Amino acid sequence: MIKKISHIAMVVPDLKQATSFWVEALGLTLGHIEPVPEQAVDIAFLPVGESEIELLEPVDEVSGVARYLSKNGPGMHHICFEVEDMEAVLERLKAADVPLIDEKPTIGSGGKKIAFVHPKGTGGVLVELYELPPAESQETRLASVRQRLSQKGHVYSAGLQALWSGFRQGNSEAE
Amino acid sequence: MIKKISHIAMVVPDLKQATSFWVEALGLTLGHIEPVPEQAVDIAFLPVGESEIELLEPVDEVSGVARYLSKNGPGMHHICFEVEDMEAVLERLKAADVPLIDEKPTIGSGGKKIAFVHPKGTGGVLVELYELPPAESQETRLASVRQRLSQKGHVYSAGLQALWSGFRQGNSEAE
Repeated sequence: MIKKISHIAMVVPDLKQATSFWVEALGLTLGHIEPVPEQAVDIAFLPVGESEIELLEPVDEVSGVARYLSKNGPGMHHICFEVEDMEAVLERLKAADVPLIDEKPTIGSGGKKIAFVHPKGTGGVLVELYELPPAESQETRLASVRQRLSQKGHVYSAGLQALWSGFRQGNSEAE
Repeated sequence: MIKKISHIAMVVPDLKQATSFWVEALGLTLGHIEPVPEQAVDIAFLPVGESEIELLEPVDEVSGVARYLSKNGPGMHHICFEVEDMEAVLERLKAADVPLIDEKPTIGSGGKKIAFVHPKGTGGVLVELYELPPAESQETRLASVRQRLSQKGHVYSAGLQALWSGFRQGNSEAE
């Protein structure tokens, strides 16, 4: 039921500084950068094998990620597993008395199911679970993302736009 | 040059308690348990997709892992990437002034090259890199492990032996 590690999320104070290690020095590929306003973070997605490294930069000072950074400093924030049959996985966790942050999955963009397990139940690790929607709705979601990204006026902050443009320029210079 | 996430290591105070979440509740598979005396830990290996979760239980109170647990509590300890051409990766990191714990790779069992990058250079994350030896020497290594494990008197602590036997019994009852 647990298919793979989807991603490891690192909380960072500054995306540009962080990518100077993960991308420029270590050599991971920068997939894309995306603002996620509902979590008050900008996220850089760095694919590696079948998984991703996600770098989370808080864009305010009150969100959960911002408070984590303020309390713990930068570092690994959570691990996310892709699962099959989210409801069965959550039932199994409940049956084992594992405390859940989400008793029922929340539904993300395109129908993706997401649930967090409380670190109290995992030995100090924030664990995210997600289940991809059926293939058809994935295609719909991808089409929607492509359309959104191709539109002028896509909602990037000015700083994020400059950062991302810089990377794209850097990438094309390197080609 | 970075091929995949090899493993995420979690430090835990007690392997049996930890596997009650990761294996029994979450549903990961327990691959095997192995004492690693040179790091003063017992490790449970839980394969997931192309990667593994490693649970590290310190077996003394003075090793690096034991001190980490004492200072930070249980949680994610390090992330390990499988690389191609370790020397090139390390040169690239040095050229970017990233502080390394190992300027040159240490050689593990079967010729595996291992190097750690200092969290000061990564944004607070302890990063391990490893490179598999060529296929022929991997085969030799596997043969050596198989032989070692099949010998009577393989060096397991009594507690670890009991734990592992318990799992194997549990597994065969479940089959």
